Amino acid sequence: VDAGLMAQAQARLDNKTKPIGSLGRLEEFARRYVAISGSLDPSTAKKAIFTFAADHGVVEEGVSAFPKEVTVQMVFNFLKGGAGINVLANHVGADVLVVDMGIDHDFGDTPGLIGRKVARGTRNMAKGPAMTREEAVTALEAGIELARGCKTDGVAMAGTGEMGIGNTTAASAIIAAFSGKTVADVTHRGTGINDSALAKKITIIEQALAVNRPDPKDPIDVLAKVGGLEIAGIAGLVLGCAANRIPVVVDGFISTAGALIACELCPTVKEYIFAAHESVEIGHRFMLERIGAEPILDLHLRLGEGTGAALAMGLIDAGVKILKEMATFAEAGVAEGEY
Amino acid sequence: VDAGLMAQAQARLDNKTKPIGSLGRLEEFARRYVAISGSLDPSTAKKAIFTFAADHGVVEEGVSAFPKEVTVQMVFNFLKGGAGINVLANHVGADVLVVDMGIDHDFGDTPGLIGRKVARGTRNMAKGPAMTREEAVTALEAGIELARGCKTDGVAMAGTGEMGIGNTTAASAIIAAFSGKTVADVTHRGTGINDSALAKKITIIEQALAVNRPDPKDPIDVLAKVGGLEIAGIAGLVLGCAANRIPVVVDGFISTAGALIACELCPTVKEYIFAAHESVEIGHRFMLERIGAEPILDLHLRLGEGTGAALAMGLIDAGVKILKEMATFAEAGVAEGEY
Repeated sequence: VDAGLMAQAQARLDNKTKPIGSLGRLEEFARRYVAISGSLDPSTAKKAIFTFAADHGVVEEGVSAFPKEVTVQMVFNFLKGGAGINVLANHVGADVLVVDMGIDHDFGDTPGLIGRKVARGTRNMAKGPAMTREEAVTALEAGIELARGCKTDGVAMAGTGEMGIGNTTAASAIIAAFSGKTVADVTHRGTGINDSALAKKITIIEQALAVNRPDPKDPIDVLAKVGGLEIAGIAGLVLGCAANRIPVVVDGFISTAGALIACELCPTVKEYIFAAHESVEIGHRFMLERIGAEPILDLHLRLGEGTGAALAMGLIDAGVKILKEMATFAEAGVAEGEY
Repeated sequence: VDAGLMAQAQARLDNKTKPIGSLGRLEEFARRYVAISGSLDPSTAKKAIFTFAADHGVVEEGVSAFPKEVTVQMVFNFLKGGAGINVLANHVGADVLVVDMGIDHDFGDTPGLIGRKVARGTRNMAKGPAMTREEAVTALEAGIELARGCKTDGVAMAGTGEMGIGNTTAASAIIAAFSGKTVADVTHRGTGINDSALAKKITIIEQALAVNRPDPKDPIDVLAKVGGLEIAGIAGLVLGCAANRIPVVVDGFISTAGALIACELCPTVKEYIFAAHESVEIGHRFMLERIGAEPILDLHLRLGEGTGAALAMGLIDAGVKILKEMATFAEAGVAEGEY
């Protein structure tokens, strides 16, 4: 990102009618947004949240509290506007773009759904690779392409979100593969499984890692063997946003696994990411530290879909408005402080 | 507040298309808002932030980085719409109501300013009581009356804010009086004073407490002797909001000192308060614990004016919309989970 522009943005903020630095992280959001977008007068008008959806073969092992059909049912709920992400995106003035990355359902020509289906879900990672390397690359490229479309369509800020029954299992497997931590240390209850289901989920992830031996030095290998198609789409979107200088707000646990894949592929991508919130899922903190991002919110969210990203977008937007709309000391005729 | 309604609100939230409890504190905001307002379908449409302004005699001791004139200058900045609170209130759809509680300036008939001047600033608390008991009560009553006006005007949610050069000195003195902690443990840099000014500020507060001996069992005595007129206005607004079942969002350090006075006067008021954010000022945490409130945001804000309250209002509004706008499992045809 442009360090010179970042300094210019902070100099402007320091001239606003407030004690220096007193708007804390709002000022950080503003100067980073300027440095990413490349403009001292950046727009935040058009915002889009991409909710990537896909199914997971590993669900047949019984790792989730919800049946696999819920992925499809929730996609229709997104398209009808009844889900959490619809309410929160609308609240902050963002569009919700629902992407079928690999749902095990034939949607035909469903209006509003962005079709990027790579497969009808991943295969069961407990028995072999979730995807081929080619499938993983195709899904990544779909995400990159959607980011390019943001540039074309004038989307100023993008957010990530996801829906996929079983996808906390994939996210935990990805973290374990990169971190070398034990599976138990990075695996939590997802949508709300009980103790015995949690024990089973941990065993299944351990089995998936033993069967597939993903290579942490090869992020696409990790993504293909124990990841998910929606996670690949998120990774691609993050890469594409960085390439197109679009600030990208990464939602919670699963989205951060996608962002982690992107950052492992290309570390400078970190500078383009805003981490929306601190997830309840253990393992999230490790990823945030690896990415070097400090979460904006801590509201104990664990829904996904992009809900945390939507709320964080509202706060980033507020920071940019401080830069653009507040009066300076000179404009307002206010005396400056002596520190 | 109405515990039965709170339980009914949570039951409705549990029926929405999401894992139970997965929207974390947004659900807490929604159920508390319902219990406070007394409606399962509460409005959040009309929001108002009261920015109470007053001067402080103790400024003559050199406790602030800014000259006293800045209180007046910032009031004109508020009225022209150029301050941080204007930008952030506008961002969340709230009105800013600027109240002169006791500024050392004759505003005449300034349009937009709500005149509730009790005195032209407090007296220097380092030499004697900041106010008489009668002045403190008059200022409290002005705040209570403004809350009653909210009810009349259909304001659904109120926020507190303040402007008053020198008012972190008053707030720290109030905390020290109630907590019995040393002044050094509850006194910080305000708008940004340096080390020697901080040492002087601590000495002045110690002197004010020694000279006035405020009685922590008599909150009005504390308010009158070492408080401020804007802090009294905030305390009154909080009391009045509770009496009128209006959720009240309390901003940072100084606002919380006002809310603390209200809670010491009437402990059940706590149930009507949302704590907007964790201030950078030390001493804030003590007050939040005493009030029993968990702050919503932690963005390292230390501006005041109601800026944190505005941002928190946006998040509370989001929580209420989750309750009102999200589809249920039955409406969306989504299968429920088994936990």
